[in-house]
Amino acid sequence: MLKVGIIGIGAMGTAHFLRLMNKINNATVAAVSDINEERARNAIAPYPGVRFIADPIALINDPEVEAVVIVSADSTHEEFCLEALRLKKFIFCEKPLSSSAAGARKVVDAELAGGKRLIQLGFNRRFDPAYGELKELVSSGKLGMPLMAHCAHRNATYPEAFDDVVAVTGTAIHEIDIMSWLVGDYFTKAQVIFPKTSRHAKNPNLHDPQIVLLTTSSGMVVNCEIWVNCQYAYDIRCEVLCEDGTATLPRHARVEVCNANNRSCGMTSDGLNFFAESYDREFQAWVDACSADTYCAAAASAWDGYCAAVTTDSCLKSQKSGGIESVPLTNRPDFYC
Amino acid sequence: MLKVGIIGIGAMGTAHFLRLMNKINNATVAAVSDINEERARNAIAPYPGVRFIADPIALINDPEVEAVVIVSADSTHEEFCLEALRLKKFIFCEKPLSSSAAGARKVVDAELAGGKRLIQLGFNRRFDPAYGELKELVSSGKLGMPLMAHCAHRNATYPEAFDDVVAVTGTAIHEIDIMSWLVGDYFTKAQVIFPKTSRHAKNPNLHDPQIVLLTTSSGMVVNCEIWVNCQYAYDIRCEVLCEDGTATLPRHARVEVCNANNRSCGMTSDGLNFFAESYDREFQAWVDACSADTYCAAAASAWDGYCAAVTTDSCLKSQKSGGIESVPLTNRPDFYC
Amino acid sequence: MLKVGIIGIGAMGTAHFLRLMNKINNATVAAVSDINEERARNAIAPYPGVRFIADPIALINDPEVEAVVIVSADSTHEEFCLEALRLKKFIFCEKPLSSSAAGARKVVDAELAGGKRLIQLGFNRRFDPAYGELKELVSSGKLGMPLMAHCAHRNATYPEAFDDVVAVTGTAIHEIDIMSWLVGDYFTKAQVIFPKTSRHAKNPNLHDPQIVLLTTSSGMVVNCEIWVNCQYAYDIRCEVLCEDGTATLPRHARVEVCNANNRSCGMTSDGLNFFAESYDREFQAWVDACSADTYCAAAASAWDGYCAAVTTDSCLKSQKSGGIESVPLTNRPDFYC
Amino acid sequence: MLKVGIIGIGAMGTAHFLRLMNKINNATVAAVSDINEERARNAIAPYPGVRFIADPIALINDPEVEAVVIVSADSTHEEFCLEALRLKKFIFCEKPLSSSAAGARKVVDAELAGGKRLIQLGFNRRFDPAYGELKELVSSGKLGMPLMAHCAHRNATYPEAFDDVVAVTGTAIHEIDIMSWLVGDYFTKAQVIFPKTSRHAKNPNLHDPQIVLLTTSSGMVVNCEIWVNCQYAYDIRCEVLCEDGTATLPRHARVEVCNANNRSCGMTSDGLNFFAESYDREFQAWVDACSADTYCAAAASAWDGYCAAVTTDSCLKSQKSGGIESVPLTNRPDFYC
Repeated sequence: MLKVGIIGIGAMGTAHFLRLMNKINNATVAAVSDINEERARNAIAPYPGVRFIADPIALINDPEVEAVVIVSADSTHEEFCLEALRLKKFIFCEKPLSSSAAGARKVVDAELAGGKRLIQLGFNRRFDPAYGELKELVSSGKLGMPLMAHCAHRNATYPEAFDDVVAVTGTAIHEIDIMSWLVGDYFTKAQVIFPKTSRHAKNPNLHDPQIVLLTTSSGMVVNCEIWVNCQYAYDIRCEVLCEDGTATLPRHARVEVCNANNRSCGMTSDGLNFFAESYDREFQAWVDACSADTYCAAAASAWDGYCAAVTTDSCLKSQKSGGIESVPLTNRPDFYC
Repeated sequence: MLKVGIIGIGAMGTAHFLRLMNKINNATVAAVSDINEERARNAIAPYPGVRFIADPIALINDPEVEAVVIVSADSTHEEFCLEALRLKKFIFCEKPLSSSAAGARKVVDAELAGGKRLIQLGFNRRFDPAYGELKELVSSGKLGMPLMAHCAHRNATYPEAFDDVVAVTGTAIHEIDIMSWLVGDYFTKAQVIFPKTSRHAKNPNLHDPQIVLLTTSSGMVVNCEIWVNCQYAYDIRCEVLCEDGTATLPRHARVEVCNANNRSCGMTSDGLNFFAESYDREFQAWVDACSADTYCAAAASAWDGYCAAVTTDSCLKSQKSGGIESVPLTNRPDFYC
Repeated sequence: MLKVGIIGIGAMGTAHFLRLMNKINNATVAAVSDINEERARNAIAPYPGVRFIADPIALINDPEVEAVVIVSADSTHEEFCLEALRLKKFIFCEKPLSSSAAGARKVVDAELAGGKRLIQLGFNRRFDPAYGELKELVSSGKLGMPLMAHCAHRNATYPEAFDDVVAVTGTAIHEIDIMSWLVGDYFTKAQVIFPKTSRHAKNPNLHDPQIVLLTTSSGMVVNCEIWVNCQYAYDIRCEVLCEDGTATLPRHARVEVCNANNRSCGMTSDGLNFFAESYDREFQAWVDACSADTYCAAAASAWDGYCAAVTTDSCLKSQKSGGIESVPLTNRPDFYC
Repeated sequence: MLKVGIIGIGAMGTAHFLRLMNKINNATVAAVSDINEERARNAIAPYPGVRFIADPIALINDPEVEAVVIVSADSTHEEFCLEALRLKKFIFCEKPLSSSAAGARKVVDAELAGGKRLIQLGFNRRFDPAYGELKELVSSGKLGMPLMAHCAHRNATYPEAFDDVVAVTGTAIHEIDIMSWLVGDYFTKAQVIFPKTSRHAKNPNLHDPQIVLLTTSSGMVVNCEIWVNCQYAYDIRCEVLCEDGTATLPRHARVEVCNANNRSCGMTSDGLNFFAESYDREFQAWVDACSADTYCAAAASAWDGYCAAVTTDSCLKSQKSGGIESVPLTNRPDFYC
């Protein structure tokens, strides 16, 4: 029974908390920390065994806490990872690993120095069954070599505070990691293009939608649409074009209704719900790996988080330059192979 | 340029009139007849060359009329067919051939006596591309022998005057003909079952929906739903279960809309529009055959109309008895092979 | 941590065993029993804490076993339920509750006599998300009153030993329970019809496919196809016809492949896999209820198992008579409301 | 009965010839011309009334020829249009209007000078029912203002002689015209991007697939994939992203087959067949307009052909420069409004 400490108990942190308490086998939550004490105390109220620890560093150091889940603000991930690495505790860190490539590199270096893989990064889609089927098919070679892909990441609405930076570091980053994983390659070039912006994009520093063109080291192009105020639902699309055919992510299975001269299926606006199964599988895999004192090979590593951060840095540059920016990656250390 | 006379210029008659004037190659309408003169004169007003002839028998006898299209009330089909047969004019007769099997037999006998195939019956679905693809696939044997089929015939609404009799002779008859054609067999047993009736079935003598179970001579069962006040649209379904797989009629191709937490496609409530392409192809085939002084082998014959009428007679019996009724068919004359 | 004993460790029993060990929160398996000791020992080998107890009655009586999962042969369910009821242990019993209505009634009476609801019956589909969405929609009344339904239960292949009896008591029984649950009504009439039988039906006492027509107390008809050698996949269909529209169970979400002039999605032949999510949810609900010393209201009860058994008895009668058989249900005791 | 002369009787010319002879009402073909006399004589052999005229200029001048259909090599369109304009005969010209913007401008100027609209350009998709539904929906404003669109034009295979130039002037040109028509705007910027090239692209001067990014005067971006050796089928995709939702072109309606653990629908590799209905409607509209001595407002004009040519010129430039190229359009003359 793995004893987990969670830092950050907002919408996603609460979902992960409930998941660990009620769905994940062989784990329980020992303590939670949050900058908003009331919110945290409300979340844990029905679970008397769970303690609240105001200071996240204290939570990481708490002797009962065997493993740490970091779901706090993006800007804090780096610090908490470094502390947990220092204590050699297992870490589940939501993406991004850091808000900058430089910060991500520090975490990678610390993990390398420690000599033990302790970080699992929360790129949950790697555990989504549909992406799994897609990767299996593309990797099988049955459709030939992949040449390009179309992706779309659509949120129904975006908080007003979010701008072009978050569109990349918080949203496009999912496409960057999953497509890199799917085709087993990394990106060397990035370009961002701004179509007409929706009136629903309320932040003046947000262009919405955006086109992010990513080129892999082998020349494959990922043509990725990011649209974070699409209004209609949370929607994720992916089609991979291979030399002999294409493979496309399915829509979720929903009841079909025929009425009023229409046939229709519901869609959800809730991304946490959309990918709920992947989160369950991701956390079970993490708990199982921690319990076996190892890391989960199927999951994203700190290195993957670093690669994503280098790529998002280039996207941010292109948002400003309008041109094609190179992605300056270094070689993957053997430690992460 | 085939000169056609049309008897009956209601909704369907008008659709056929406009089709012959504007879409069908190598044909024109010389005259129309209708019990409602005003309606007829309105329909032909934009086409100065078309005459109105009040008396349908006179229209059939009109020397300019080379071929007759019968779209008048069901009860009149038999009489007009007999007159046109007498004059050895080509006939396109909307289904049913007659309101009773006995009447249909009279027409068949008259055509047999005349020694020339002159009647094409308006079972339009035989010209629908999707049914064509279905028949080709099932006939190919790729899926093995057909064992049973599910069919559904759904109208959005039914005129209040229509009752259980029309549900069979006007609606189920389409399923009877098309399934017989599809599997190349005829029906030997029929049973009608009444589920709960919709509040939208306004005629007290109408059960809606109904289940019509039809068994072919080889034991295949067609499980057919007739629902004529389904409200939501005109909808036709068909799935054929073969030993090694199934084949299903597609939905119409319609734009998919994503909005308001839904993805949806429009459906039409208009059956004439739903099957428009089949009507066009059916009439072009008829005109081409008449022009070549022959009949169209792909179309339904008077004999097919007779078989359908014998089967609907048994369905009507079962509506009253609640039991399984036999379908007393005789052998197909060589003339119709 | 609920300590479970499992009786029967075949394909389904093993799936449930692994589920309880690896996926279900707050439960573990203490012991298993099986008529095939080797099979059982192989299954538990990787889990040193799990004991093998040859005698199922001994397993039920084992002091460490707090709750019993019955996945043994259908004919044994009744006996094991009665023993566990006697000991007032919680029971998860795979369907059917008994191989006859009379046997099922004995179990119901024993549970009633004990005065505590202890049995959860394994009608897993009640936990399937798609059926859940369907029920929610139909129950909402948005589409009006349900009038009839089309169902299809298709297995890729059936063991050669299985005959018409199993087609009803092992297969149609799922449709009987889920449709009764879906519309909140029970069946009063049943009729079975035999279409042409597939050459793939190897047992001479098996007709395949079969049509099972079930009428509820309010007159709704469930038009249910049972086809257990459909070859192509495991496939479950359900469309509910309501006065103002229809609702249809979706296909599973699978990657769409375009190649070789085709677009296609894979299907599975494995029913355990097809409904895996429902089994997970069903067991978590059972464990949660047992842990709270109560029963799960969302699950099927012994009474539901009895109702299904009475209905399958009538279906078996109709297979022999060819006619419509009544379903002689008695009133639901308050205990089960 | 409009008497038509056809120049060019290859695959598409033959399809148009048969269409005019057998499907289009109120038209017939008087004469055909082709550089390959044998091919032409074979095509017309079953139609004794149709003459072969070797010299296309003579065919245009033939007194019996009232209207001219130009389906010859792209490089000849300009010359034949100019000659038919000189004679004030109605013209149906397959796209492109000319192989260069300068040539297209000459044709526009000649038509302007003649003072009568005589040219209908063969952008057939404007008559496709699905594009029609898409345009109607987008134009209705129900989904808000369009922001961007994804398009894909995929051919199964491309003749080996075809290179990057044809990929733009023969293929991308369809997307350019239809999207301009769909949103009622013209393009001001164009950029072409080359992903990894398929091994099936046999011409060394062909990159395949390509991404063509087109920006309209109002800032909308059309993200268009051109893939001419996709192998699997002829496939056309279009999704328009509007502020409140999206609208997507449907797949063709094809029978769904379930077998061998798959459900699948056939696709065609034949583009002429894929768009057959649009060609029929386009030609009937042209014949109807000619018969009424006017032009068809729903069809593409010489001006539309000129706009497309200016845009393809910019795409060709971008193929070489790799950068964003402006599209130097001038104002639409009132004559074409």
